[in-house]
Amino acid sequence: MTVINPIHKGVYPAIQVPFNDDYSVDQEDLRRYSRWLSSFDGITGLVVNGHSGEITSLRPSERNQVTEIVVDEVGEVMPVISGVLCEGTLESIDHARDAEKAGAKGILLMPSHHWLRFGKHKDEAEKFVRSVASSINIPVIIHQYPAWTKASYSTEELLSFVKIPGVAAIKMGTRDMSRWGHDYRVLKANAPNIQILSCVDEYLLPTLIEGADGALIGLAGFVPDLMVSLVRAAFDNNLEEAKKINDKTYQVTKMIYRFGEPSGSAHQRMKAAMKMLNILRTDIVRPPLIPLNKDELSMIREDLTACKFLKNIERDKITYHQPSF
Amino acid sequence: MTVINPIHKGVYPAIQVPFNDDYSVDQEDLRRYSRWLSSFDGITGLVVNGHSGEITSLRPSERNQVTEIVVDEVGEVMPVISGVLCEGTLESIDHARDAEKAGAKGILLMPSHHWLRFGKHKDEAEKFVRSVASSINIPVIIHQYPAWTKASYSTEELLSFVKIPGVAAIKMGTRDMSRWGHDYRVLKANAPNIQILSCVDEYLLPTLIEGADGALIGLAGFVPDLMVSLVRAAFDNNLEEAKKINDKTYQVTKMIYRFGEPSGSAHQRMKAAMKMLNILRTDIVRPPLIPLNKDELSMIREDLTACKFLKNIERDKITYHQPSF
Amino acid sequence: MTVINPIHKGVYPAIQVPFNDDYSVDQEDLRRYSRWLSSFDGITGLVVNGHSGEITSLRPSERNQVTEIVVDEVGEVMPVISGVLCEGTLESIDHARDAEKAGAKGILLMPSHHWLRFGKHKDEAEKFVRSVASSINIPVIIHQYPAWTKASYSTEELLSFVKIPGVAAIKMGTRDMSRWGHDYRVLKANAPNIQILSCVDEYLLPTLIEGADGALIGLAGFVPDLMVSLVRAAFDNNLEEAKKINDKTYQVTKMIYRFGEPSGSAHQRMKAAMKMLNILRTDIVRPPLIPLNKDELSMIREDLTACKFLKNIERDKITYHQPSF
Amino acid sequence: MTVINPIHKGVYPAIQVPFNDDYSVDQEDLRRYSRWLSSFDGITGLVVNGHSGEITSLRPSERNQVTEIVVDEVGEVMPVISGVLCEGTLESIDHARDAEKAGAKGILLMPSHHWLRFGKHKDEAEKFVRSVASSINIPVIIHQYPAWTKASYSTEELLSFVKIPGVAAIKMGTRDMSRWGHDYRVLKANAPNIQILSCVDEYLLPTLIEGADGALIGLAGFVPDLMVSLVRAAFDNNLEEAKKINDKTYQVTKMIYRFGEPSGSAHQRMKAAMKMLNILRTDIVRPPLIPLNKDELSMIREDLTACKFLKNIERDKITYHQPSF
Repeated sequence: MTVINPIHKGVYPAIQVPFNDDYSVDQEDLRRYSRWLSSFDGITGLVVNGHSGEITSLRPSERNQVTEIVVDEVGEVMPVISGVLCEGTLESIDHARDAEKAGAKGILLMPSHHWLRFGKHKDEAEKFVRSVASSINIPVIIHQYPAWTKASYSTEELLSFVKIPGVAAIKMGTRDMSRWGHDYRVLKANAPNIQILSCVDEYLLPTLIEGADGALIGLAGFVPDLMVSLVRAAFDNNLEEAKKINDKTYQVTKMIYRFGEPSGSAHQRMKAAMKMLNILRTDIVRPPLIPLNKDELSMIREDLTACKFLKNIERDKITYHQPSF
Repeated sequence: MTVINPIHKGVYPAIQVPFNDDYSVDQEDLRRYSRWLSSFDGITGLVVNGHSGEITSLRPSERNQVTEIVVDEVGEVMPVISGVLCEGTLESIDHARDAEKAGAKGILLMPSHHWLRFGKHKDEAEKFVRSVASSINIPVIIHQYPAWTKASYSTEELLSFVKIPGVAAIKMGTRDMSRWGHDYRVLKANAPNIQILSCVDEYLLPTLIEGADGALIGLAGFVPDLMVSLVRAAFDNNLEEAKKINDKTYQVTKMIYRFGEPSGSAHQRMKAAMKMLNILRTDIVRPPLIPLNKDELSMIREDLTACKFLKNIERDKITYHQPSF
Repeated sequence: MTVINPIHKGVYPAIQVPFNDDYSVDQEDLRRYSRWLSSFDGITGLVVNGHSGEITSLRPSERNQVTEIVVDEVGEVMPVISGVLCEGTLESIDHARDAEKAGAKGILLMPSHHWLRFGKHKDEAEKFVRSVASSINIPVIIHQYPAWTKASYSTEELLSFVKIPGVAAIKMGTRDMSRWGHDYRVLKANAPNIQILSCVDEYLLPTLIEGADGALIGLAGFVPDLMVSLVRAAFDNNLEEAKKINDKTYQVTKMIYRFGEPSGSAHQRMKAAMKMLNILRTDIVRPPLIPLNKDELSMIREDLTACKFLKNIERDKITYHQPSF
Repeated sequence: MTVINPIHKGVYPAIQVPFNDDYSVDQEDLRRYSRWLSSFDGITGLVVNGHSGEITSLRPSERNQVTEIVVDEVGEVMPVISGVLCEGTLESIDHARDAEKAGAKGILLMPSHHWLRFGKHKDEAEKFVRSVASSINIPVIIHQYPAWTKASYSTEELLSFVKIPGVAAIKMGTRDMSRWGHDYRVLKANAPNIQILSCVDEYLLPTLIEGADGALIGLAGFVPDLMVSLVRAAFDNNLEEAKKINDKTYQVTKMIYRFGEPSGSAHQRMKAAMKMLNILRTDIVRPPLIPLNKDELSMIREDLTACKFLKNIERDKITYHQPSF
């Protein structure tokens, strides 16, 4: 297996999936939405089948369907990466191969959710990643879960991953800032080519400053221009500008995450806001998620109004991509 | 849908699955093992595709294969219940229907592991259980996860479940003893027919005394006679006898759970001990689990030797079940 | 230093402290209350300055005052043990010596609350206990905190304590049942004379059955007869009787702990209930605790009414103790 | 009570306390050390009796002694603030008044450690802060504990504090970055004059960028110039410079906190490093803390050597302060 690392520095939206009333994928809207995202300068690639893409509620065949559609729509202009999430290694290999067949240019390998409940043995994670990475010919982005989950990888485990051929990047979701700078430095010292992508929507700027080669975040599927400009300002060491953008970003994250309040799921809120702004046609979520209630929707509408920098997209003007051949 | 509650008081082993070297199911050994378990007086039913049965590492088709084999082997003499574990509601319904088709007389419905990571909305769990229960014609046993996981159900949620037609029992794995007696009393007051099954292998006696209608535990797939006698002594209020059996049980749980030590997974230890005692032909576990190392195996062998009450099974004398027709 | 272990099997109430309106100790009522408690057959000793005795809100001199009063009142008929709670070792030694001077026949040594925040080094706890135990001539009861706190002692640490001269008992508040039976067996195997006292008010019976030499609990300062009879039934292996008493105990613990509900502090609830039953003259708590509101008080009153087995004490008939000399 | 807020933006070292072999305060060295710290341009005030100052191991009279010495030494040139840490409100008021008498120009009010174990009622914290603040004539800095402790204040509680006369600043130790920017904005919107001081030694830069008016940190008692320059660069929006300093800071924090390794207490490591650099005469810590072992000391020495920017202080050249009058 020879793999050239196609994971570049940059901004990777973890995209949402629009559904029809019967919960099937709204193919036309998914195309339109992907196309819209790909039109932003600074968007480096799209990630389908992430948590934002409701991977946990999609059947295996539906995950492939989503990958195929997005690849068909924007695959010519940017890489499409697909999440892989299964609890067993054998099934993970199946899904990784399916993603490759569907046209993905990389996989985002999530940890076995079995570990969330029972934790993991020493060496178990390394073997898991190695088994999956060696069964495909596209690169692997490791999804690091929060430090307070039993599925989170230790610094030592992360170091073992970056030595595995095919592992190209880490989506760093540790959410323990006391480890961020340390892990970034240690990983880069041991594997200079590895890309460390922040996945912290709600406090992106601090992570960019402590060390990040880009961002792989759901928020970039909602406000792509804002996220790109924040990443750029941080890369340019333009702190004054970064803080200004951060003030806007805060308005958006407050609406989505509702800091300190009893809160519905962020995914549902983001989908609702995206429908209100015409970015998606519907805000239907797949069960077990349930729709937001009226009060929650009203709060989002109010918050959106306060975000004067956000504008409805004009969906009709988004031209479909014509695969060139 | 009319459902008669076939979940009786009693002891339900969550059985292991023996594998061949290529990780395929060792069908012959699975039959032999199921048959052996079913021969014990006091074993009320068998549970396949539980955590002990490595459900998280089995592909969907393999889960059905296991159910079919065990149903074929012992389905005439006792109910076989199959675990259902998916993260999405739609896929959970698919799996539940497949279990019914495969001959299961009930499902053990695990929570969406998505919740382990993200938690759940009010009402989300009730809708999830209702959707699955109403899509099949066999009863549902709810699997309650430990209180310190975000997938654990509140007392209020449990109360909402027992009103759903088809919900017949709760596998009570809360592992927070301050809630046990309370939940037991409140659930029984609201749904007198519900069965509350303890799933606490490592301190079964206290849960039986605080209130339980039986046990659904992996340990009963390893030492079925011990578990049955402990449950009986507790039901008979024979505390002197129960404490004697509990002393033996402690020897076994110490070997499996290694209280307070850095420990390999209990599932692997149990499988290793079962191979040593001739209960299973192999102790192969499916990845991402990895085999125990030599030191760990030596410790188990020593501990087994100390458990003088445990005897090798004579595998040749276990007669296969001939389906009667 | 020669120490004979005076900590016997039995029931030790961790007593409350009644306050006057100006937050000073209501000395007369404290005497009356201690006298009442000491009149119950089966009460083995009294513990002052425990969490139930609001030790954290009492100034050092007030802690001694409480010890002196209770020793003066009941010291002739049963041992009085005083809690010692400081964050530094040197101050803990000061307080331990003061308790001895005030007449305590033992101390209940709580862990440094500094550890709750920062955790502890290997060997730190052993040295702390050894330093305090060697500075006094009365025995030490170790207060074990819940396993989920950073101040909780590992099995290894507990084993190191029971080898220290002067350590006579452990108030086992681990509240992790998977460790209870293991710790009990291991400690008894290494130090047969050590007393393991349960401090689990809300599920006392399970701990008694897994192994306990008695109970050191706040609830025994409220319903002493109930607690004594429960401990006796468990010691006698009379499970039928124990379960009957347990049903009553549940009524009381439900009122105090309000399982699964947003709840005020148990200490305040217990004090309020004790005032309603005439056991204490007032239910004043020291700040930072704040009084219960009207709704909370109404709920307690309702719950008390439902506990038909509880009776008001006739305070006038409680004769004061006359120190014999 | 009329209080003018003397808590300015800036850098406040939480200073260490040197001890003699008999654990008494090394008064001469404490003077020398305070004087040294006060000589740095950018150091705004000194905080005694913080966690770095081993408050939990100091008897009440010793806490006052430390305050008096440091006030006597540097009180003419900068404010000295004293930590107050008691579990009861009444004793906290005693200590706060004693701090004022000893010459402190403010108190750092820590939460009751009773809350670490048992949590707190609604309104309890507000009453606690109000009671203490109203009993003195010097301002109060609120010490916010990490979000994962039960003593941590909610955004709502923090908002209730900043309305209390006398509350001048918050030492923001939430250590949950998803709340930092939100809390900063909300508190400033409601109380523009409140000072939000970061207390996050190990990732100071991110907190400065998300919003902070300075830093109240132990690390500033060890490397005052580094901390001052980092804060200045952040205030100046000079990200390039800030990142350079941050690289040095990382070397120091790695030595102190040993990210991801089994680690001794940071306080002991810092004291050991300070002795090696001649900043303190001894590295004796008060029990229950125990001295670092040889291996730990060797690691610190190695790490110090790698920090080429750190230099031994020339203790002889530090001139004592002569109180002017």
